[in-house]
Amino acid sequence: MQIPVIQKVLAANDLIAEELRAQFENAGLFVVNLLGSPGAGKTSLLERTLERAGGMKMGVIEGDLATSLDADRIARFGVPVVQINTGGGCHLDAAMVRKALGSLDASGLDVLLIENVGNLICPAEFDLGEACKAVVCSLPEGDDKVLKYPAIFSLASAVVLNKLDLLNYLNFNLPDFRRHLAELNPDAALVELSCLTGEGFDRWMEWLELEARKAREPGGGSRSPAQCRE
Amino acid sequence: MQIPVIQKVLAANDLIAEELRAQFENAGLFVVNLLGSPGAGKTSLLERTLERAGGMKMGVIEGDLATSLDADRIARFGVPVVQINTGGGCHLDAAMVRKALGSLDASGLDVLLIENVGNLICPAEFDLGEACKAVVCSLPEGDDKVLKYPAIFSLASAVVLNKLDLLNYLNFNLPDFRRHLAELNPDAALVELSCLTGEGFDRWMEWLELEARKAREPGGGSRSPAQCRE
Repeated sequence: MQIPVIQKVLAANDLIAEELRAQFENAGLFVVNLLGSPGAGKTSLLERTLERAGGMKMGVIEGDLATSLDADRIARFGVPVVQINTGGGCHLDAAMVRKALGSLDASGLDVLLIENVGNLICPAEFDLGEACKAVVCSLPEGDDKVLKYPAIFSLASAVVLNKLDLLNYLNFNLPDFRRHLAELNPDAALVELSCLTGEGFDRWMEWLELEARKAREPGGGSRSPAQCRE
Repeated sequence: MQIPVIQKVLAANDLIAEELRAQFENAGLFVVNLLGSPGAGKTSLLERTLERAGGMKMGVIEGDLATSLDADRIARFGVPVVQINTGGGCHLDAAMVRKALGSLDASGLDVLLIENVGNLICPAEFDLGEACKAVVCSLPEGDDKVLKYPAIFSLASAVVLNKLDLLNYLNFNLPDFRRHLAELNPDAALVELSCLTGEGFDRWMEWLELEARKAREPGGGSRSPAQCRE
């Protein structure tokens, strides 16, 4: 009984997601669906990204079960931001994003960053109309995460490996992590950085700027998500 | 359409869970459902627990989307262990545990530790017939996790705060974390420890021994999960 219903839910979600994708592409707006475990550093990545946004105009949609803690952190940067609270829901869906866009002035934005609920599993299944999915993973989570959560890593256009500053205090095998990702998803851009020290952050900003520029080019938005890679 | 079906799935799950709970209680077997984010240190907690098991006979059920990496780690301790792979599934359910018990010789065991899929949301909803839920959380995940994932923390009989060894390298407010948990779930036993250094581990073993002893007492198993607390 359960599976057909879930397929129907996913099909309904995909219709709304395609609507959103067309809307984003027409506006030349580059949209990233940011995924990762609780505490991987998704909000910290957004904070550092907004600090360095330069000429790029950015907006943020925050997803959490409860609280507006993350949107409060983002609001301090003076950018358009909306908090979605899912109640108990384990992922964002396209209808939630469509509704949130009603409260967010996206006109003139270059980049919209959607921080999904902290969960390395369920959010992978729900298209939000984004151009790219980026997975944020952090060193303390361990070097086996690509092997143990392959679905989400296989869909990522970029993988941000955060908390590089802790490398000397952990038993984390960086070559193993790189190899697992290269074997599962060789097209994903791997960006190793620390949101705390800023190490490696230039590389993330370069990726974001390049993709945002592509989205603004005529016909740039019509590429498939798979092309949203280096 | 979706909600009634999910309620039916949960009701079906609860029937199997009650069957399992009666079976565990008759056997005087103390069963813990171990929950937490990917990389919180659930498997490391099990490894250190097995090292210190002393007179307690323990078995383990491992849950993961993919791989038998965790069961391989546990098998080195020579205890009964079964790996469940959920495919894409974001949680264990009671039927999976019942099936796994067919491959695990639980006779003579005092404690059965079930490591759930790494996920701070969905596993909270599925009763596995356990006596207690224990949530493993770690310092690098941040001090706001109780506020942002209240459902799972409110169900915990014990909360293990792991990776205490990293306290000096992180911006983690320990008094805040303690206060959030005390306000949400004052009955939960909070155990702060490091699986790496062993600091604080005695307290976890004391909790486990006390609860396992209660489960062996006549009528001890008949207490409600809410009583499985200090």
